[in-house]
Amino acid sequence: MAERLGPPLAEPIFDELAIIGIGLIGSSLARAIRKQNVARRIFVADASPGALARAEALELGDAFTTDVAEAVRDADCVILCAPVGANGAIGRAIAPALKARAIVSDVGSVKGAVIAELEPILPARARLVPAHPVAGTEQSGPDAGFATLFVNRWSILTPPEGADPDAVRDVRALWEAIGSNVETMSAAHHDLVLAITSHVPHLIAYNIVGTAADLEDVTQSEVMKFSAGGFRDFTRIAASDPTMWRDVFLHNKEAVLEMLGRFGEDLTALQRMIRRGDGDGLFALFTRTRAIRLGIVAQGQETAAPDFGRRGPEGRSAGP
Amino acid sequence: MAERLGPPLAEPIFDELAIIGIGLIGSSLARAIRKQNVARRIFVADASPGALARAEALELGDAFTTDVAEAVRDADCVILCAPVGANGAIGRAIAPALKARAIVSDVGSVKGAVIAELEPILPARARLVPAHPVAGTEQSGPDAGFATLFVNRWSILTPPEGADPDAVRDVRALWEAIGSNVETMSAAHHDLVLAITSHVPHLIAYNIVGTAADLEDVTQSEVMKFSAGGFRDFTRIAASDPTMWRDVFLHNKEAVLEMLGRFGEDLTALQRMIRRGDGDGLFALFTRTRAIRLGIVAQGQETAAPDFGRRGPEGRSAGP
Repeated sequence: MAERLGPPLAEPIFDELAIIGIGLIGSSLARAIRKQNVARRIFVADASPGALARAEALELGDAFTTDVAEAVRDADCVILCAPVGANGAIGRAIAPALKARAIVSDVGSVKGAVIAELEPILPARARLVPAHPVAGTEQSGPDAGFATLFVNRWSILTPPEGADPDAVRDVRALWEAIGSNVETMSAAHHDLVLAITSHVPHLIAYNIVGTAADLEDVTQSEVMKFSAGGFRDFTRIAASDPTMWRDVFLHNKEAVLEMLGRFGEDLTALQRMIRRGDGDGLFALFTRTRAIRLGIVAQGQETAAPDFGRRGPEGRSAGP
Repeated sequence: MAERLGPPLAEPIFDELAIIGIGLIGSSLARAIRKQNVARRIFVADASPGALARAEALELGDAFTTDVAEAVRDADCVILCAPVGANGAIGRAIAPALKARAIVSDVGSVKGAVIAELEPILPARARLVPAHPVAGTEQSGPDAGFATLFVNRWSILTPPEGADPDAVRDVRALWEAIGSNVETMSAAHHDLVLAITSHVPHLIAYNIVGTAADLEDVTQSEVMKFSAGGFRDFTRIAASDPTMWRDVFLHNKEAVLEMLGRFGEDLTALQRMIRRGDGDGLFALFTRTRAIRLGIVAQGQETAAPDFGRRGPEGRSAGP
C-alpha cells in the first residue's frame, strides 16, 4: 500500500534551494527534494533554534541558520514553509538578499492573501510562483515529516497574472519530481475550493471537540471512552497545528464564511428533518453522500480499507 | 498493532445463541463468539436471503434462517443486530417463540427508544438486557465483520429498572469474553453521551459532504481531487450505513437536537471570531482541543500514528 517515489532526477532543477520553516511540510519537502535530486544544495532556515537543531540532527539540509536573509542569498529557489501569518515579516527580511531571477514560492493553505502580501514586498528581480500541496498529517515539527507525503497528492500552483513561465515550469517540475500531481488555477478559486475541502472541515472538527469539552452533563472521561463511535476522527483533525490553522482562518476569511454559511443552512434543514421525523429525507442524503466517497477512492485520494475499526483488516480473514 | 483476543472460555456461557441480523456488527459478533467459545451453537437469522447466503458461505453460524421465530426457539440468548427501526417488528415476531428465561439483548446505538419499544412487546418470561458496543467501521454487510472489532472497545449495558441480575451478569460476561470493556448506565444517559460522541459527529459529516456536493462554483471533481486537506475524513464517516443512521436519528431525536443546538451556538461564536479577526480566540480553542485528543490516545481508544498522510509511517525513517 505504500506510495513510492519514482527514480530521482538525472540533473537537479536548482543549484541551491532555501526552505524557510522546517515543520511538517518543510521537513517533508527537504527529505523529498534531497531524495529526488531536485537541488544540489539545501539551505534550511527556521526562527526556532530548537527546530533547527532537530533539522540538523536529522540531516535535512546542507546548511542551517536562523537568519532568513543568509539562507536565501545564493538560492535559485526559496520556499516559504512557515505559517501563513509569518510571510509578511519573512518577505521583508529576504527581499534585499534575493538573487536576480530567484524564484519565491510557498506552501500555504491560502493563496489570495499570500499573493496580496508578498507581491508588493518582493523586488522586481524575484519571480513569485505560489503553490499549495494538498497533503499533510495532524502532526507538526521537523520529526513529523516524511519524503513520500506528496506522492499521488495534488499540488496547486496559483501564479499571479504575468508570472514568468519559466519559473512556473520549474516549480511544476519540482512538485512532479517529488511525486505530486500539479494543477494550476487562480488564487481566488483555490481559496474557495480549499474552504470547502479543508478549512471548513477543520473548523467544524475544532468546534465539535470544543462543544464536547464544555458539557456539564457528560464528563470528559465519558467523551474519551466512547469516542470510537465517530468523535475520535474529529479529534484527530482537531489536533492539527493551532498556529497554522489560526492563520488560515484569518487569511481566508471571506471564502470560509461563505462556505460556513452554506453549511449552516444545510444543517438547519437537516435539523428540521430530524425534528419532523422525515426518515425518507435523511435516507436520501445519507445515500447520496456515499457516491462522493466512492469518487475519492476511485481517484486514488483515499484507501478503501476500513478505518474506524483501526486494526480491522487482519482479523477479517479469520474463519470460524 | 493488532488488537488480540484473549484465550477462549473453558466453558461456554450459553448453549444456544441467536443473532438476528448478520451485518457488520452481527457478523463480527458471530465470529468473536465462535472464536471465544461463548456459545455451543449459533443460530443466524436475517431478513435478506442474500446476506444469509453470505453468512452461510462464511460459516458464521451453525444454522441459518430467514424466520426469526425459528432462530430463537431454543436460544438462551438472543441478540438483535438489525437496524434499530426493525426492532419492533422483530420483537413481535420472536415474542411467542422465546424460551422461559431467554435473555434478549441488542447492539443498537440508541437505548431509550429500544427499551420503550421492546419492554411492552416481550413476554414476562424473557429477560431484557440492552447493550451497545461502541465500535464499528464505515463498511456494512456480513463480509465486513471481523472477530477483533470489539477488543479494547467499550460496550455499554443499559439494564432497565428491575432487570434480572443473572442476565446482566451473563451479558457482561459475553462482552468481556470477546475483549470488550463493559460499563453500565441508564438508557437516558447513554443516549445523551452517544449523541455527542457519535450521532452528532455523523450528522455533521453527512451534512458537509452534502454541502460540498451541491456547490455550483466548485466542481465535484475538484472536491474529490483536493479532499486530502481534511474533507476526505468526513466522507469516510458519511459512507456509513444509511438505514442504520436514519434509524438512529429518528430514535434519538431529543438528545441529538439538544447537542446539535449546542454545536450550533458554538459554531456561531467561532464564526464571529473569524469575522472579527480574533486570532487569540481561535488559537485558544485550537490549543484546547488537542488535550482531548491526547486523552483519547492515552485511554487506548486511538493510535497516535499519523493518519492524514495515510501511508506516512514507512517513509519516516528514510534518511537523506
